[in-house]
Amino acid sequence: MIRAGVLGATGYAGIETVRILSNHPTAEITFAASKTYAGKKISDVYPNLKGVCDIVLSEVDIAQIKEKCDVVFTALPHGASKEVIPSLYDAGVKIIDLSGDFRYNDEKVYEKWYGAPHDCPKLLKKSVYGLCELHRSEIKNADIIGNPGCYTTCSIMALAPLLNAKAVDTKNIIIDAKSGVTGAGRTTNLDYSFCECTENMRAYKIATHRHTSEIEQELSLIAGEEILVSFTPHLVPLKRGILATSYANLNGDYTDDDIYKIFADFYKGEYFVRVLKDALPETNHVAGSNFIDIGFKVDKRLKRVVVSSAIDNLFKGAAGQAVQNMNIMFGLDEKCGIANGGFYL
Amino acid sequence: MIRAGVLGATGYAGIETVRILSNHPTAEITFAASKTYAGKKISDVYPNLKGVCDIVLSEVDIAQIKEKCDVVFTALPHGASKEVIPSLYDAGVKIIDLSGDFRYNDEKVYEKWYGAPHDCPKLLKKSVYGLCELHRSEIKNADIIGNPGCYTTCSIMALAPLLNAKAVDTKNIIIDAKSGVTGAGRTTNLDYSFCECTENMRAYKIATHRHTSEIEQELSLIAGEEILVSFTPHLVPLKRGILATSYANLNGDYTDDDIYKIFADFYKGEYFVRVLKDALPETNHVAGSNFIDIGFKVDKRLKRVVVSSAIDNLFKGAAGQAVQNMNIMFGLDEKCGIANGGFYL
Amino acid sequence: MIRAGVLGATGYAGIETVRILSNHPTAEITFAASKTYAGKKISDVYPNLKGVCDIVLSEVDIAQIKEKCDVVFTALPHGASKEVIPSLYDAGVKIIDLSGDFRYNDEKVYEKWYGAPHDCPKLLKKSVYGLCELHRSEIKNADIIGNPGCYTTCSIMALAPLLNAKAVDTKNIIIDAKSGVTGAGRTTNLDYSFCECTENMRAYKIATHRHTSEIEQELSLIAGEEILVSFTPHLVPLKRGILATSYANLNGDYTDDDIYKIFADFYKGEYFVRVLKDALPETNHVAGSNFIDIGFKVDKRLKRVVVSSAIDNLFKGAAGQAVQNMNIMFGLDEKCGIANGGFYL
Amino acid sequence: MIRAGVLGATGYAGIETVRILSNHPTAEITFAASKTYAGKKISDVYPNLKGVCDIVLSEVDIAQIKEKCDVVFTALPHGASKEVIPSLYDAGVKIIDLSGDFRYNDEKVYEKWYGAPHDCPKLLKKSVYGLCELHRSEIKNADIIGNPGCYTTCSIMALAPLLNAKAVDTKNIIIDAKSGVTGAGRTTNLDYSFCECTENMRAYKIATHRHTSEIEQELSLIAGEEILVSFTPHLVPLKRGILATSYANLNGDYTDDDIYKIFADFYKGEYFVRVLKDALPETNHVAGSNFIDIGFKVDKRLKRVVVSSAIDNLFKGAAGQAVQNMNIMFGLDEKCGIANGGFYL
Repeated sequence: MIRAGVLGATGYAGIETVRILSNHPTAEITFAASKTYAGKKISDVYPNLKGVCDIVLSEVDIAQIKEKCDVVFTALPHGASKEVIPSLYDAGVKIIDLSGDFRYNDEKVYEKWYGAPHDCPKLLKKSVYGLCELHRSEIKNADIIGNPGCYTTCSIMALAPLLNAKAVDTKNIIIDAKSGVTGAGRTTNLDYSFCECTENMRAYKIATHRHTSEIEQELSLIAGEEILVSFTPHLVPLKRGILATSYANLNGDYTDDDIYKIFADFYKGEYFVRVLKDALPETNHVAGSNFIDIGFKVDKRLKRVVVSSAIDNLFKGAAGQAVQNMNIMFGLDEKCGIANGGFYL
Repeated sequence: MIRAGVLGATGYAGIETVRILSNHPTAEITFAASKTYAGKKISDVYPNLKGVCDIVLSEVDIAQIKEKCDVVFTALPHGASKEVIPSLYDAGVKIIDLSGDFRYNDEKVYEKWYGAPHDCPKLLKKSVYGLCELHRSEIKNADIIGNPGCYTTCSIMALAPLLNAKAVDTKNIIIDAKSGVTGAGRTTNLDYSFCECTENMRAYKIATHRHTSEIEQELSLIAGEEILVSFTPHLVPLKRGILATSYANLNGDYTDDDIYKIFADFYKGEYFVRVLKDALPETNHVAGSNFIDIGFKVDKRLKRVVVSSAIDNLFKGAAGQAVQNMNIMFGLDEKCGIANGGFYL
Repeated sequence: MIRAGVLGATGYAGIETVRILSNHPTAEITFAASKTYAGKKISDVYPNLKGVCDIVLSEVDIAQIKEKCDVVFTALPHGASKEVIPSLYDAGVKIIDLSGDFRYNDEKVYEKWYGAPHDCPKLLKKSVYGLCELHRSEIKNADIIGNPGCYTTCSIMALAPLLNAKAVDTKNIIIDAKSGVTGAGRTTNLDYSFCECTENMRAYKIATHRHTSEIEQELSLIAGEEILVSFTPHLVPLKRGILATSYANLNGDYTDDDIYKIFADFYKGEYFVRVLKDALPETNHVAGSNFIDIGFKVDKRLKRVVVSSAIDNLFKGAAGQAVQNMNIMFGLDEKCGIANGGFYL
Repeated sequence: MIRAGVLGATGYAGIETVRILSNHPTAEITFAASKTYAGKKISDVYPNLKGVCDIVLSEVDIAQIKEKCDVVFTALPHGASKEVIPSLYDAGVKIIDLSGDFRYNDEKVYEKWYGAPHDCPKLLKKSVYGLCELHRSEIKNADIIGNPGCYTTCSIMALAPLLNAKAVDTKNIIIDAKSGVTGAGRTTNLDYSFCECTENMRAYKIATHRHTSEIEQELSLIAGEEILVSFTPHLVPLKRGILATSYANLNGDYTDDDIYKIFADFYKGEYFVRVLKDALPETNHVAGSNFIDIGFKVDKRLKRVVVSSAIDNLFKGAAGQAVQNMNIMFGLDEKCGIANGGFYL
């Protein structure tokens, strides 16, 4: 059994990690920390886990973690992650960080978009960007994973095959993304109260959302040139789900069949990627699962392709991909404990 | 009192027309027709109106309409509208058509996007496109109004000022629009059942939605050249509301202040248009009202402007604008009966 | 024009009062106060009202109120109301209090259920319980109205006719009530965040909810004997709406027709009460309106009647009834400004 | 591996059975039938299962079932089940029927509540009522299980301990139950469309719902006398979840502690029953799981106990309990494949 710790276990990404691990056949939760609820059983905070996972929450305690854990999931706010991760690293545990702190190849990009110095650039260099389908071989041997953001996963995977195939103009790439409310985390902010969110939708942080920088980093890597994108996040009234609609101008007279082939080839053999033919994704097909569904349509009039991609922001967009990373790092079947289909209902 | 008839009174656009008119100080409903429910009280079908409007639904009856009505709202499916409108026209009543049948300057555009001959091109020529803020003076004297589509209203009004000011490149205009479920009308289609829609979202009809042609017609008129746009509709789990996110490349170094001025000047004196400064629209600010809220953000990195616009698809996007058209046609205060703010809650 | 002030204008009951008054033909808002947002325009806090009501929020200021207002709606938390109401009374304005502070005939009942001394029992004696259909004649001449609670209105009106007719056993009365989330007010409490509320429901405060005492006070008055009831509130994931299901054992072999007659007679001529025959209420029939819909079913097997009643908790359950009280107090048509049907959509 | 067939696999109870079985470590789906979709892959109808379960749907085919299946889940409408079950029985497969057809000890009760003759009373006699916690020993050896209804499971389990302990008056038992919309199944009925259901709630079938008869059958068995109950179902706008609020008059001066002891003793050792102390259930704690959460409160004023119980109607209320029955029948660990906690998010 892999012995796993979860820090920030009572946030939404943290508790989803706990929920998934509590159902994982070859991992067990041996340590869970929560600043707010230390001393309580996790199932007193999340009664859905009563009888399933009743571990008592602790403060972060490196000595204990060193003794009890093979891997630690840090589901902390950005900034908080990089304060604790150096000690975890020194303790010799594998680290899967769900914050934004270890997702960058270049500390300057972090500093520009997060508006603060990175503080541990050496560890940043050792970290691997944990988008499993793109960086599997590096993940295998990594000690620190920067687990990708939710918008990021959904957007990069929609555009990577097209850029890889040089099928689209690298200018004028636009990503219009819509997220469920769990993306905001467990928060008492009035903006996320039921009465303010239900029957409502809105765009936010136009042209300034931090995930833009992750998307650009990864797409640039694939394209072999600097890619800049318009990224617009939106809040929609559901819990789980991101839908990204991506627009790019085609470099030639591609048909729907051509584009399908590009995607199918790029994601050949990938269990968690479902490329759709003549169909478009819906978030309830992926909710509760680690799948990403990708559909598309060529607009011949405008020589443009529109890609629609859907994930569960908490699962493939956070906790599920984190467990997928763990499976890869520990040499397990990559699907282990996360092979299930979406809830649909 | 203006005597109003409503055909297709039990569809969602029809019943919203009835609801608004039943609260209008200088109009009264004198005739209401429904193929499905003829013979029943409208308040037996929509019990929210019990005691408020208990008119008995009829079959369409031109003689009765001629006698009882000054204006008729036709809230029928496209195709059905153009079958009845010639008789209504001959009967001498003013016509406000909520279908797609009378929205085009050129019957060929209709025929291309609707895949059927128009049948009454002469009346089409007499009809006026009822986007009140753009065609007010023609509406005043019109006998037939082609009341604009919901997506259309929200999209055109977001882009018209920029094209009018020649501020944006006329290529690469992208409109990513999200609609609440009432946009699909009163339907028993499984796709719109509660369990299939709630906690779900999806794109549909990419590159082929009919409203594209309305948007292009009106934007071309304003730009003085042919405008083609990418238009992608999405279904999101709420009842009322459209949010359109529009992308266009700027023709110069415009600032947010410059763009604000372009919008503020264009919509000067328009009660129903609220141009937002340093804020973005939310659909619950306009739900239940005839307002359109428009916000925007210049992305300096990419020399691109992103416009966010929100309306209530049933109100400003259908029944409310229809009543606004009636107010203009009959010389009333344009706000009469529809001046109220959004529900918010 | 009646000049109206609203204190606590930015809470949900407050803003609904503002929204209704901004559409009232013979009232105008001349003063609005908010502790949190004093100095801001009300439409900066609630942008749905931009252009509709842009009054600047003040602190509570008795001198100004005295000068500017004929009536004041106090939409403050209980406790806060009774601190400000004595000064308002001395200033000679009519008071309609939406809190629990002035709803009791007996200060001891208040003190028992609210766990605090009442402080101004003399004014309590002058106050009238503002359930319009039951206390219309006293309301006409009242200076202080204790506007009823939302659960209370929905429950009392469902049972009053039966107790008045001595048709039911006064023991074993059970009220199982379900409320939308606006009932909790504008709150940052995590329990009312979108992700915790949507796709969720729960009972709360079983046997201890304060509205129990209001229900018992009014039902006892009608029955002429002390009535005690089981009252169980529930939270359900919608914004507006209360549905109360009330159970009582019948004193004889009543049929559905008998019960209909009891209700129809009791509420004869009441515009806002819709007694349903062979139908049951739905909250979307009353949402956004001042109506209460009441249906019922006799269970012959068990000699029991089950009454189902529905209101909009913010409208008939708070702000709408408050305006109805104003209309009565100022001799207006009782329906003025609140005659509209429910939203349905 | 247990080889399982599912008939009616594309209804909501059917597909939830498929979803659960596709994740079960010692069962596999070897046959799936759907009248509407025969010939299609199940994952074409439910794309959430693409890559997870791609079995091709058949017509019902007894010969194939006999060859391929050890157990068959019949998730058919009532009436349809009893047409096919005799042949399945003759084919020698174990049967778990999710309809109402095999839930009764007495065919007369079925005939009274379902308004039709039962047709196969002999098999009805062989069937066992599959409420696992109450009938485990009979289930072990059963060939036909009448899997309980959703409302039924939630209601019976809330009241059985109290009746067993003779703690409550057997008269005046009232069950007020609220269900999510999946309870209505996969339907194109307008009443269950998104726009009619969201932001809405209502009671239905007061005093006449068929599940009443199941509840009475089982409670009478436990009480040792005939129990009649008021049962009122309600529709609330969420997908998964039933919350039942049950009222009974206490036979003595019971405290909350006494009642807790009664429940804790009755359900001692039951993994899927979580008796709550000083807390009330919420449906999102059980959604997606086989748990039932039970809380309660003694109302000392009225000498009455109010019990609140919550299940997932599709899981413990249908497919999950069906799999629990399978586990028992085949001698597996009862929790196998269904031990997971609720989704919460």
